[in-house]
Parts: sequence; C-alpha cells; structure tokens
Amino acid sequence: MQIPHITPTQDAELAARLQHAIDNKTKPVGSLGRLETLAKQLGMIQQRIEIDIVDPAILVFAGDHGVVAEGISAYPQDVTWQMVENFLANGAAINVFARQTGCALHVVDAGVNHDFGARDGLIDRKVAPGTANFAQGPAMSTEQCEQALARGMALARDVSGNVVGFGEMGIGNTTAAAALMHKLTDVPVSECVGAGTGLTPDGIVHKQKVIEAAVAKHGALPDPQSVLATFGGFEIAMMAGAMLQSAAMRKLLLIDGFITTSALLVAARIAPAILDYCVFAHASNESGHARMLAALNAKPLLQLDLRLGEGTGAALSLPIVQAAVSFLRQMATFESAAVSQQCM
Amino acid sequence: MQIPHITPTQDAELAARLQHAIDNKTKPVGSLGRLETLAKQLGMIQQRIEIDIVDPAILVFAGDHGVVAEGISAYPQDVTWQMVENFLANGAAINVFARQTGCALHVVDAGVNHDFGARDGLIDRKVAPGTANFAQGPAMSTEQCEQALARGMALARDVSGNVVGFGEMGIGNTTAAAALMHKLTDVPVSECVGAGTGLTPDGIVHKQKVIEAAVAKHGALPDPQSVLATFGGFEIAMMAGAMLQSAAMRKLLLIDGFITTSALLVAARIAPAILDYCVFAHASNESGHARMLAALNAKPLLQLDLRLGEGTGAALSLPIVQAAVSFLRQMATFESAAVSQQCM
Repeated sequence: MQIPHITPTQDAELAARLQHAIDNKTKPVGSLGRLETLAKQLGMIQQRIEIDIVDPAILVFAGDHGVVAEGISAYPQDVTWQMVENFLANGAAINVFARQTGCALHVVDAGVNHDFGARDGLIDRKVAPGTANFAQGPAMSTEQCEQALARGMALARDVSGNVVGFGEMGIGNTTAAAALMHKLTDVPVSECVGAGTGLTPDGIVHKQKVIEAAVAKHGALPDPQSVLATFGGFEIAMMAGAMLQSAAMRKLLLIDGFITTSALLVAARIAPAILDYCVFAHASNESGHARMLAALNAKPLLQLDLRLGEGTGAALSLPIVQAAVSFLRQMATFESAAVSQQCM
Repeated sequence: MQIPHITPTQDAELAARLQHAIDNKTKPVGSLGRLETLAKQLGMIQQRIEIDIVDPAILVFAGDHGVVAEGISAYPQDVTWQMVENFLANGAAINVFARQTGCALHVVDAGVNHDFGARDGLIDRKVAPGTANFAQGPAMSTEQCEQALARGMALARDVSGNVVGFGEMGIGNTTAAAALMHKLTDVPVSECVGAGTGLTPDGIVHKQKVIEAAVAKHGALPDPQSVLATFGGFEIAMMAGAMLQSAAMRKLLLIDGFITTSALLVAARIAPAILDYCVFAHASNESGHARMLAALNAKPLLQLDLRLGEGTGAALSLPIVQAAVSFLRQMATFESAAVSQQCM
C-alpha cells in the first residue's frame, strides 16, 4: 500500500520571517505564549505569513470492537450505533461543539456492528461489522487493515478546507488504544489502561489483564501496521489513514484525546513528519493519555479534564487556533501603531 | 462608601437539579470535566437550568503608576497612553480577540498620564494623571481610592449583558499588583515579583527591593482598602469596584491575569462572596500568578503561557464558557436519544 509522502515543515528562512512578524506585533516579545507557537507552526505548514483557516472540519470515525466480549467496557456495545444515531440527530456533544465553533462535521461508519441502511449524513465506509476479539486472534486481517487505511486516505482527499479535527466513537476502543500504546511505546500496560467510559477499579484491573494476555499471545510484531491490525479498530485504522493523507495535503491536524492520539501514534510510527502538522488539542483525563503525549513529545493545548472523545477536544481547540491566526493577521505593529519599544 | 451586597450562590436544591441535568446528557458521567463545573457555576449564578450568555463585554482599565520613577519597568510610561490609542484604533491583541469572540470592548481611562481630550470610544473616568510614587508616599489618597472604586461601580451598572471580562493596561502595574499580593496574602515579596513586560533578572531584583523598601516604609495597614490606596493603581481600584458591582448584579466575571487577579484579590478581601461569580480565565506566565491563584483557591481554565494582560485571557476563555452553556442547552439526554446507560 502506498503511504502518501509527508514533507517536514523545516524552512529556516520562513521561520525567521514568521518570528519577525510575530515579534513586531504591539506586545512584549513572547507574551502571547502558545498562540505564538501555534501561529508559527501554521505559517510553516501553510508556507506563508498570511495564515488562515478555511472550512475547518471534524471527522468522527465509528467502529466496534470484538474485545468487548471480554467485558472491558462500562457501556454495552449497542451504545456505538446509538451514539452514531445521536450524531446524525445532532444531539451529541460533538454536534454542539462543532456547530459552536463553525466546523463541518463528517460522521464515518468505519466498522460499526449495526446496519444503518443508506442514511443521509452518514459516510458508509464499513470494513466489517466490528473487529474480531483480539483476546483470541488478530482484530483484523492484513487486508482489512489496508482497506481501512486506504479508505481513510481516500476520504480525507475529498474533505475541503485546511484544518481537520479527528474524533471517534467505539465502545471498547480505549482497550484497543491502550494495547496499541503499549506495543508502540513500550510503556507498561498498567500505565496505558484507564477507566474509559467509567470502569470501576476492579474493571480496570480486568481490562489490564485482558490486554496483557493478548500481548503475550500475539508475541512480537514486525511493524506498526501489523500492531494496528492485531489490536486496532477499524475507526482507528481509518483515522490513521485520513491523518496521513491530510498531513500530506499540508493541512493542520487537530488531535483529540486518548484514542485519536493512538491513531496518530500509529501514523507517526509510519511517517514521523506527520508530527509537524499536529496540534494536540487537549490532555484527556483518561489516565494513559499524558504518557502517550509524552511519548510523542507533544504538549497539549487545553487541560479541561475531558474524557469523552468524539473529537470534542479538537473542536474546542479551534477558537484558540483561530486566535493565533487572528493576532498574526490583525494586530498592529509597533511601527504602524507608533508604540515605543522596550527600553531596558 | 457603600459596597454593593453580593449574595453567595449556595442553593442545594438548584445544585441538585443542575447536576441531574448535566448527568442526563448523552455522555459518561463527568466526562466533560471543567465544562460541567462551569455549567453548574453559571446555573447557580443565573439561578436556572436554562443558562445563557447575553452581550458579553470586556472592560479594559488603563492607568499610570508613579512608581515607574524607580525604574521598575522594561517599557517607558508613554506606552500606557500609546497602547490606549492602539485600543481605540483596534490594533491591540484585545481588540482582535474581543472581535473574534463576539465581546463588546469598553476602554476606560482610569488615570493615564496623558490628555486624550474627548475621544469617541474612550470612557473618561480619570481620577488623576497617574498615581503617586508609592516608594515615597501612598499611591493615592483615601478620597482618590474611594473615587476610583465608586466610578468602577457606577460604570459597571451601565454595562449591559450577563458576562463581563476584565483587563488592564498600565506600565508599572505588575509592581503595584505584586505589592498588593504581598500585603493581602503574606506571600514573600520575592515570590510575588516577576519580569512584567520583560525585565532582566537584575531588573527583577531591583523591583523586589523597591517593593520591600516601600512595604517597610508604609508599615501595617488596617484594611484591604488602605492597602489598595497605598500600593494600587487607579485602573486596579476602578476594576475592583466594577467587579464588586458586577457580582452584585449576578454576572459571571472573567478574571484575566496577574494584575486583574490582584484587583479581584482586593475585592475578595472586601466581599468574599464575589468568588462564587468568578471564572479564572488563565494561568499567566507572570511568575507570581500561580501563587496568587492558589491564595484564592482558584483553578485557572486555560494554560497558554500568556503574559500580556489587556483582558486577552478573559476573551480567550469565553468560547470555553460558551461551550459549557451549549452542551447544557443543546445536547440530547439518554432518554431523548434512546442511548443505553452504563451497565457496570
């Protein structure tokens, strides 16, 4: 399978011009903190000083997980398709936040265990009605994994705009994400698992044991893609494909919480330059997320104790990214405003 | 002087109804983190479940400080009036962020050392052209301090809307704020002072010595208002008055960075119930701010390494507050969306 080429954003001359433009704004040097970093990152991605945000979109990928048979989620599997229905009816948190922040919302059935029929507003890219139980065998076949990645890439090619946020829905997918994290970062399973949608402490211990047994069963795996096939979900694989394609198209990627970051982790192991294109929207309350971000050397933008997924953190980060664009485009310079510069 | 009465927001029955409404939304309990806390706080302030944001406004108070004669700022005093001109010309960061977030912006001359004449868009409430140098005597007289507080209260009565953010401009005002912080919290001066707009390490040490000498000179002071008169600025005092009045009117207060929080600290020592009405918008990079927030038992909403003032952090926090309103008003409930609830 062809992975789209992602170009690192390094360009010393452009970086210097961006820094000069930022420092000339009527404010003490560096005083807009993370907004300055964001403005510079976006300038490097868009290869210009006059950065902008055009048609921002959130892609939400939904899929089911065979590993739910092991009793690793606080909610029944039916909640996956019920929440997809909720997305289509505009009732979920991501609908509310996407609307508020002016993001288009695209809902993708990557592999939900439910027949939705042909539905307005639902992008049907179902690979299969849920993965297999990775406690017993690989979650998906090599072919299914390639299909999910390829469908994600194709789908991302058709998304307009230059900023794209990623989110997901899938009962059981914190278990898949924790297994991916362990395999791709070597962080112990106990530090990768968390409460997900609301497990008890006993439930968390059980989830950890399920993952540890599966990791032992499957043994060494040769590459990130085989890790993805063995433990991932269709929504995670399709999201990873869409991320790779979006970065290749020089878009800014808004990375949501624990599961979305696990998809990015897979993508970054395949193509490390993708990291130049990512904003890590928030620090999830799911306990493994901080370690996962650290493994990616990533500093989250928001700390709001969210643990919902769906792309909610990605949507909520957009006004901050917009502020970075706004200050660089609209603020006066010391010269234009005739404000005195630093004297000591 | 009459301080407006501020009612604590405690109401156990309403709190329970709000929590029930929040928990019934289609998401795991607690999974929207700080947004849930914010929604509940706003419900307690507005005394209803159907919370809203109407006509949000940012008030920016500007004033000059006699203590700049001691060489405690990296920028010359003229920058205060030059930046007020920049506000009026829509070129500053707060103009950009207020416009982006849909906030009205009101710029107040509380005591700038400059004659602006009658100017469209500038609210002239000048008490005097700058405070006196607190290294030599009190920054303001008792009468001036009362006048500044009273003018702030009167001004806040005329502001429409139910959410008001606070910001400031005043070369030298981190020195005033650090002195207020030390006197009102007993945190050592060395932990209250920071780089302000960009002092060198030597400059910070000098600033600390100026404050320590002034604190020793003025000795014990009987109450928060006399601390304010001795070390404060007209913009800080007027802002404190406006905060007290706004909370008495049951508005949500968005508290910006180090200087704005110092005004709130004064207000909270006068009327502790004001804290029920405050959102602490962000953690400033000015080094004393974290300790100041801790003294108020306050948890900031954003951590973006800002240190600009002007109300920039307050404006940037508004979309997050808006998200809290949006989810409570617009999300479906488990019943309305027919989504299964937690099973274990």
